[in-house]
Formats: sequence, C-alpha cells, structure tokens
Amino acid sequence: MNAGESLRRLREYRPLVHQITNYVVMNETANATLALGALPVMAHAREEVEEMASIASALVLNIGTLEPAWVEAMLAAGLVANARGIPVVLDPGGAGATRYRTETAQLVLAELDVTVLRGNAGEVATLLGADAEVRGVESISAGDPAELAREAALCLEIEVASVTGPVDHVSDGERTLAIANGDPLLAAVTGTGCMLSALTGCFLAVADSPLDGAAEALVAFGVAGEDAAAGARGPGSFHVGLYDALAALDPETLDARARVEEHK
Amino acid sequence: MNAGESLRRLREYRPLVHQITNYVVMNETANATLALGALPVMAHAREEVEEMASIASALVLNIGTLEPAWVEAMLAAGLVANARGIPVVLDPGGAGATRYRTETAQLVLAELDVTVLRGNAGEVATLLGADAEVRGVESISAGDPAELAREAALCLEIEVASVTGPVDHVSDGERTLAIANGDPLLAAVTGTGCMLSALTGCFLAVADSPLDGAAEALVAFGVAGEDAAAGARGPGSFHVGLYDALAALDPETLDARARVEEHK
Amino acid sequence: MNAGESLRRLREYRPLVHQITNYVVMNETANATLALGALPVMAHAREEVEEMASIASALVLNIGTLEPAWVEAMLAAGLVANARGIPVVLDPGGAGATRYRTETAQLVLAELDVTVLRGNAGEVATLLGADAEVRGVESISAGDPAELAREAALCLEIEVASVTGPVDHVSDGERTLAIANGDPLLAAVTGTGCMLSALTGCFLAVADSPLDGAAEALVAFGVAGEDAAAGARGPGSFHVGLYDALAALDPETLDARARVEEHK
Repeated sequence: MNAGESLRRLREYRPLVHQITNYVVMNETANATLALGALPVMAHAREEVEEMASIASALVLNIGTLEPAWVEAMLAAGLVANARGIPVVLDPGGAGATRYRTETAQLVLAELDVTVLRGNAGEVATLLGADAEVRGVESISAGDPAELAREAALCLEIEVASVTGPVDHVSDGERTLAIANGDPLLAAVTGTGCMLSALTGCFLAVADSPLDGAAEALVAFGVAGEDAAAGARGPGSFHVGLYDALAALDPETLDARARVEEHK
Repeated sequence: MNAGESLRRLREYRPLVHQITNYVVMNETANATLALGALPVMAHAREEVEEMASIASALVLNIGTLEPAWVEAMLAAGLVANARGIPVVLDPGGAGATRYRTETAQLVLAELDVTVLRGNAGEVATLLGADAEVRGVESISAGDPAELAREAALCLEIEVASVTGPVDHVSDGERTLAIANGDPLLAAVTGTGCMLSALTGCFLAVADSPLDGAAEALVAFGVAGEDAAAGARGPGSFHVGLYDALAALDPETLDARARVEEHK
Repeated sequence: MNAGESLRRLREYRPLVHQITNYVVMNETANATLALGALPVMAHAREEVEEMASIASALVLNIGTLEPAWVEAMLAAGLVANARGIPVVLDPGGAGATRYRTETAQLVLAELDVTVLRGNAGEVATLLGADAEVRGVESISAGDPAELAREAALCLEIEVASVTGPVDHVSDGERTLAIANGDPLLAAVTGTGCMLSALTGCFLAVADSPLDGAAEALVAFGVAGEDAAAGARGPGSFHVGLYDALAALDPETLDARARVEEHK
C-alpha cells in the first residue's frame, strides 16, 4: 500500500471514472472525485452506458434509488468494463432493507466480475448471509468486521471486500487490513459511503492491486475526514470542508498519517 | 406543543423517514433529516416502495419533478403507510403551476389519508380552490393564511394543514397556531420548503399529535434558520449553516425560542 | 453589453427560467438561478413541460444524464418556447463523449431554434465538426476558440455561440467578444458549466440581444467566481462562496469589472 504514490499518479493521469449511482448523491460523488483529482462522468442511459464504460478507467455501480432500467444499464456497462479489464466497484447501498436491493446486489455479483464490494457491515453481511444460506454455511460472525471482510472476499466471487464502519476492513481473502482513519461526522452526512465507493474506483484505476487501491481510498477519505472535522461546526460545514480536504491531500504525508494494521 | 421533548425523542429513537421526493432536493432533504437526528431513506421504485414504507416511521411525498411512475409509487407507498397507521406528509410543490401537479396533488389527497399537507399559500389555495369549486364554496380568503390553513384542514380531508410563508400557520380545523420563527434567507435557497416537509415527517413520528408535530417542525426549522442566518454571508453559507444549526438545536432552549401564538 | 443594467432588471422582474437539466446539477443550477435573482423551475415530465414552458421567460436544455423520455420532453418544451419567442439555451454537456449525446445535441439543434449554444471548446467543436462533415467543411481550427465561436454561430443555425474555457468567447457570427473573467477553481467544481448555462437563460430573459445576454452571463458568473475564489480554501468552500457571490453581485460595479474585448 502506497497511498501517496497512488494519489500522485491519479492527479497526473486523471482517470475517467464512470459512475452509475443514485439520485441522492450524484453531485456529491462527482465533486469528491473531482476534488481528489480524477474525472467523474455520470451516464445511465442504455443508449450510452456501454460507450461511456469503454472510455473509462473504472466503473462504480451504486444501487441506491434503483429502477429496473438502471439495473439493466449497470449490467451492460459492467460487461464492457469486465471485457476491457477495468476495475468495477459495487456499492450495495441499502441491501438488506428491501428484497429488491438485496436481489439486485446479488444479480450484479452473479453477472459481473466485481473487483471491490464496498459496503457497511449490515449490507455485506446480508449479501454474505444470503449467499451463505445457499451454501449451507450456518453462521456469520457479523460482530467481527475483519472476519466479515475476509469471508466476503472468499465467498462472494469478488476480489476484495471493503467493509466500512468505525474501523474499516479490507480483505482479499488472504490479507486483511484494518484502517482506523476517519471521523464520526462522516456518518452525519448522507452519501459519504457513496463518495468512498467513488474514490475507491479512482484509486483502483492507478493502484498496484485491488487490495491496495481499496485500502488507499479508505486512508485518503479518512484523512480528509479528519482534516474536515478539525474545521467543522457541524455536518454542513464538515461536508463542505471534506471537498477542500480531499483537494488538499498531500501525497508526501498521506502514508505517514495512515492508521493501517494488518489483521492476524 | 413541546418541541424540545419531541426533538429529544427523535434523537433517541432515530425514526426512519421514507421520502419520495423530487430530484432537485433529495440530497438536501436527506441531509436535513440526518442533521436533525432522524434517518432518511429515499426509494421510489414500484419494486420496493411498499417494503420500504413498511419499515418506516413516517412517509413524505413531494410532487416536484413528477413522472407517472413516481405518482404510482407514491400511491402504493401511501397505502402501506395508511394501513400501518404511520403519518403521511404531502408537499404539493408546484401545485397551481401546471395541471399535472395540481391534479396529482388532488389524486394523492383523494386516494390517501394525508396526515399533514405542507405547502405555501399559493399551493394550498390552489388545492382548496379546486376543491372548493367542486363543493360550491365560492371564495377563499387567500390573503389570510390562518383562515387558509383552517379551511384546508376542514375541507381537504387531511388532519392538519401547514401553510408556510413569512409567518407560518398550522391548523387541524379546530386550533390554529401561528409560528413566526425563521429568516428571509430561507427563501433564497431552493428546497427549504421540501426540507421542512421532510422534518415535518420526522416530528410526526414522535409527536403527541399531528398538530403538535407540524408546529414543532416549523419551530425547529425556523430556529435553525435564525441561527444559520446569524453566521451567513449569503445564500450559500446560509444553506451550509442550516445543517450545522439543525444538528446543534438544543432541546433545552427550543421551546423558549418558539414564537408561537394561538390564533383566535 | 450592459451587465449591471441587465442584472438590475433581472432582480426586479425575477424571470421564471424553466430548466430541463441533468440529475447531477439540478440543485446547483436552481440555487445559482435563485442566488442571481431569477426564479428556477425544474420540470421534465411530458405531461407538464409544455405548460411549464408556456409560463417561463426562458428555457434551458442540458443533455447530461440523458434518457429518451427526457429528449422528447426537451423537444416538446422547446417547440412551445420557440412558438412563444422566448430564448432557448442548449448546453450540449458531454457531446463528443458518446454518440447518443452528440446525436441528441444535433437533434435539438435541428428541431429547435436555439438562441444560445453554451458549451466548452470540445463540445462545440464536435457539433461543428459533425455538421461540417455533412457540409463538406474540411477543417475547424479547434485551437482558436474565437474562431470556433464564430464558425459555430455561422454554421449551426443558432443565434449565438458561447464557448467557455480559460478565456470565454461569444459570437453571433458578426461580432465576437472575448471574456476573461473567472477563476481556475470553477473547473474544480462539477456543474459550473451547467450553472453558467442556467444563468445565460436568466440574462437572455432581460438582455437587449442574445449576444449581450450571453456575454453578460459570462461576466456575472466570472466576477462571482473571482469573488468566491478570494475567500476559498478549496473547491468545497469555493462552491459555497459562489452562491454568496452571485447574490452579492453589485450592478453598479459589474461592468467596470468586466474583462471583455471585442475580437478583431
């Protein structure tokens, strides 16, 4: 993991990150992508998603505010991304809350090669639990996020699971990293998880491996959250400060500020 | 009315408020809900609205940026909300501007038991006027918002009308309250009315009565507006400060700051 | 060109500007319109676009996050706008990135009388190039934005081309103006081009001519960008400051701050 080096590359190459995401956070994920230094593009029409995915360096799929036409577009864009070998991030926002979201997340996992699944513990446990049932696995230790990340990476046919919470965990099934950067104010603003999924796409476009990219995104977003919290008077000013902090991230000091531990 | 006590409950129980609202303000109403202390969820697909409404503590319907599929989803979610007895807020944004919006607001009022109708004087007068015509009522004193709120509560088969303007008025047909909190800058930011409708849903989930909940939301949002205005340099910084102020609302002092008068 | 006088009129008459724009920036263009002093309305349903366009003072069409139903709505609203003689702005966001966007922009240009085409050099060159091919024009000096604006105005059956970049250029085919107001931070926030298209619609509603209106919008937005940059710590605070600065624009000093040169 070398977050500083990846950030440097990202700002030099400015990868185009195609995002099919929900209505609530489109502006926010686009601005977070731009503030970090990459280029966002939002496109969801069946008429153009394949062409857009064919010029992008990463694809981010987010299932909040779903509709059938959007699911179709996600699959179409994802197949192009897979064929081209560019990374695909899936944010299963709200999986577990309704069957439609759970089943759509499962469908995306089944139809596409997802590089990184980025969700909170409940969402990932839902997907793992559903999958586990099918496979006859009885219990998932939802209380242990490191184990959850590891099992998700092993069982869900993804390369890396990125499970966020008070402490975040990323795992490729072999190695599991715990990342303790961040601030509680991140939970007071809607769409910060979605922003992180977008930034995961940005880092995957330049990182040495999916595990590195997923971890680097968590470090970068977490450090930006810490900086934004320092100047915030509440969730509104924190939200604004987050974009300032992402743009001000210093590749020189980023790794020194990372609070990462390898999980044994 | 006890705004402080309701705010305390709201922050303790964190009710889930299902919102089917317009594209322009989704992020804003979600963040206002979160800043106040409740949990927002946006879902509009026919495939999941009923399930989402079945786990929510309140439902907020907002007719800005309408489409037929969304109207259908609103009705489906609303029927579930009615069956479960959770409060339903209708924001008839833009009623009167086009027939489609007026007729959709009328359709929602006809098909669902709406707990609180929250709109500006023009929107409510449009709905009352249209209804009045049918019922043979000749004239509506649109110039008197207290009377408008009272007549809307009596004639529109809703429990409470919440009519916002320089001074806001809520009425259940028997009692009418005038709430004078707020700041002119609220009119300089798009979607503040929609945010208020969302917060009305939050308060209804914990208030003693619909009249109380509607009034408490107006007090809380108005006081937050006053606090945000104190530090603002214009509509942009006011908008940001509004979320900070909502999160900082103090249950201890909220009722002392309420500028509420019972209308005789 | 008299930006101060137009701004004064705009704040007095508060023209209603109907916008059919993309999901990413709806809140932003609405707030920019409101901060400047005009009134935004977003409506895209086939059921109401014609009625909304029939009460508006300008129509702004933006093709980001396209869908077939939205294209239909744009054309329907545009025909009403043309019949009523109100100005129509086209923002061909993303033309050139996918065939669908390029062809939709071409369709709008073919079906409607577009008053001002507002795009960046790449988008306008794409439209001019495609058009040029059909007309047998061989080469477009994409490197010269003044010439690009002039050729677009002459060849695309629009009244004025507004080509934005480090220096902006507007042309009606006879006169070409270069506007050097603005700040590099405008490129660090998503949707600033879309905001400018919305403000172009606002100014067209009150300006003496399309060339004047397009130039005045660039001056106003550019000056606001300069003011916002003065107080910004990054793209987040710049974004917020932009609304404050738009609201604070002073008609008395606006023209003195304009950095406009007529291109020879």
